[in-house]
Amino acid sequence: MADTYVLVHGAWHTGELLEPVAQQLRARGHTVHCPTLAGNRPSDDRSRIGLGDAVRSLQAFIQQNGLADVRLVGHSYGGMVISQIAAGLGNRLKRLVYWNAFVPLNGQCLNDMIPPHYKALFDQLAAAGNNAVMLPYPIWREAFINDADAALAEKAYSQLNPHPYKTFTEPVQLPLEMAALQVGKSYINCRQDIALPHSLPWHPRLSERLGLFRLVECEGSHELCFTNPKLLAQKIEEAGHD
Amino acid sequence: MADTYVLVHGAWHTGELLEPVAQQLRARGHTVHCPTLAGNRPSDDRSRIGLGDAVRSLQAFIQQNGLADVRLVGHSYGGMVISQIAAGLGNRLKRLVYWNAFVPLNGQCLNDMIPPHYKALFDQLAAAGNNAVMLPYPIWREAFINDADAALAEKAYSQLNPHPYKTFTEPVQLPLEMAALQVGKSYINCRQDIALPHSLPWHPRLSERLGLFRLVECEGSHELCFTNPKLLAQKIEEAGHD
Amino acid sequence: MADTYVLVHGAWHTGELLEPVAQQLRARGHTVHCPTLAGNRPSDDRSRIGLGDAVRSLQAFIQQNGLADVRLVGHSYGGMVISQIAAGLGNRLKRLVYWNAFVPLNGQCLNDMIPPHYKALFDQLAAAGNNAVMLPYPIWREAFINDADAALAEKAYSQLNPHPYKTFTEPVQLPLEMAALQVGKSYINCRQDIALPHSLPWHPRLSERLGLFRLVECEGSHELCFTNPKLLAQKIEEAGHD
Repeated sequence: MADTYVLVHGAWHTGELLEPVAQQLRARGHTVHCPTLAGNRPSDDRSRIGLGDAVRSLQAFIQQNGLADVRLVGHSYGGMVISQIAAGLGNRLKRLVYWNAFVPLNGQCLNDMIPPHYKALFDQLAAAGNNAVMLPYPIWREAFINDADAALAEKAYSQLNPHPYKTFTEPVQLPLEMAALQVGKSYINCRQDIALPHSLPWHPRLSERLGLFRLVECEGSHELCFTNPKLLAQKIEEAGHD
Repeated sequence: MADTYVLVHGAWHTGELLEPVAQQLRARGHTVHCPTLAGNRPSDDRSRIGLGDAVRSLQAFIQQNGLADVRLVGHSYGGMVISQIAAGLGNRLKRLVYWNAFVPLNGQCLNDMIPPHYKALFDQLAAAGNNAVMLPYPIWREAFINDADAALAEKAYSQLNPHPYKTFTEPVQLPLEMAALQVGKSYINCRQDIALPHSLPWHPRLSERLGLFRLVECEGSHELCFTNPKLLAQKIEEAGHD
Repeated sequence: MADTYVLVHGAWHTGELLEPVAQQLRARGHTVHCPTLAGNRPSDDRSRIGLGDAVRSLQAFIQQNGLADVRLVGHSYGGMVISQIAAGLGNRLKRLVYWNAFVPLNGQCLNDMIPPHYKALFDQLAAAGNNAVMLPYPIWREAFINDADAALAEKAYSQLNPHPYKTFTEPVQLPLEMAALQVGKSYINCRQDIALPHSLPWHPRLSERLGLFRLVECEGSHELCFTNPKLLAQKIEEAGHD
């Protein structure tokens, strides 16, 4: 069955970096879009763009392309964006798929869900970086892309971009909590993902905020888009189909 | 080595639904029985049958067939049944295998081990259904058989039968706690099983009540009997052999 | 890339028992050493040897062989040894790899990290065994080597040796906590390892004491060195490379 997917990237990423995954899904017959959110585009002013701006940029993309029956996939920070946009999409939305993604309660910001040592680090980096943050390489290498070899870890890192910190500190606005939203929901959990420590994990801590949801799991780090796009596409399909 | 297995189905199931698993085990040389417990047979009065009735029906089956050195496998609700029957089997019992199954403390009923929102739902369904409950399809599809496609999820659902609710509310009677029973014990944990939420999980929350036990795990949902009977048979053998 | 590995065995084991793993790593181009720690050598006086003795024997091995850029892999109890030795190795040490291994806080002994029922059992066995303990076979078979068949479980057990209990009760001496040590660190978690119960697990309970670390996981019991040395070697390489 040919479905329509919109893949929403995480912090420091762009839509282009999800193209290898999208190509795998297209090879399986689906229509796939990988927009880059406001805040991660080359000319964006990263000192000022917040979560609401990112959400509006995704709304505009879906409307301008006339997309319907969308299976909306959010990675990491992208979970904040698909959560805020979901209720307003109405019938345009077919299913939400969170892939190691944040599931906020109404009024929470991303920073409310991460360990204190990450928040302290990001505060420091943002203060020094005109309110944009770049993830330090050692953290990236060991905790984000732990299933890569050094060459791939370095190459992928070189493709990242500084992230507008206001998207981590601006509270999400939800008309109703995600558990109450009546739409199909799935959570993909890559099991070696320690971008959030396993003592404060993605699943089930955040996934269960979805209420009734479909769990899909696989081996891999937070950055399966780089380390195994084919497996990720397969899991997105298992999570996204009816 | 040719062993004797008795597979004890879960709620809403019948023994017949475990035949694809049994056939795989038979192809590996084992003798396998799949009785249907009292309460899930076509002509049973589902308004009145309780846990004790189900246990007695299994006892009768084992005695009438003169089974010995039995490796007794219980799935889900079937864990209640094999727990209550175990001590009385004496030498007829070789090993207990729990497959994402309830391990009760003496005096607990199944409902004591499930989340409050499930208990509230079942109470409501039983009140409306002459004390028999059917699992709503959306829960089945997302939380029980999350590793199936829609066609298999629907086909399997059509084979389920309303379950006598008294088996969920009647306390188990154990001569001694399962941890104290001197017999080989194994627990098979299908890792994407969210029939119980992972914040209130099968393993290790319930499995560790067995005391010393052998852990066997695999990928899959609560309904691996439908989605991958071959893998399930392999795991039952790994859990069940000496 | 050809790297240098030193594999440090766990309690009841010898270096020789890690040779099948070492051979796999050598076939991948690496230099691999498998010393046997003081306390587990045939002529050792198991009534007196403690953690400090084991540590000194490993220090001597590394110095006498003039090893540099060592990737030091500790299994189980071996984690105590590599933790205490690490800071003093300076530039000789390239990376620490814990494989279902203890990560102590300064001043802790191994017994501080195990469940009370194991400590009680070991106390009893040591009192009866001249301060050396042998792991009872039923625990070995179900909780340590649960992924083996009976023949392999028995054969491997026959190769174990009584373990000097003082290595479990002598506190570790760390110049600084492991999280503060500036060296690459990895943790390999075999997921069916219930040598420590999953309610009191290796990962993330002990692994996160490393601070920033790389997580690598695979299927298998505590004794993957016997049940799948090839897979273990692959995981050691994923954990150990730069």
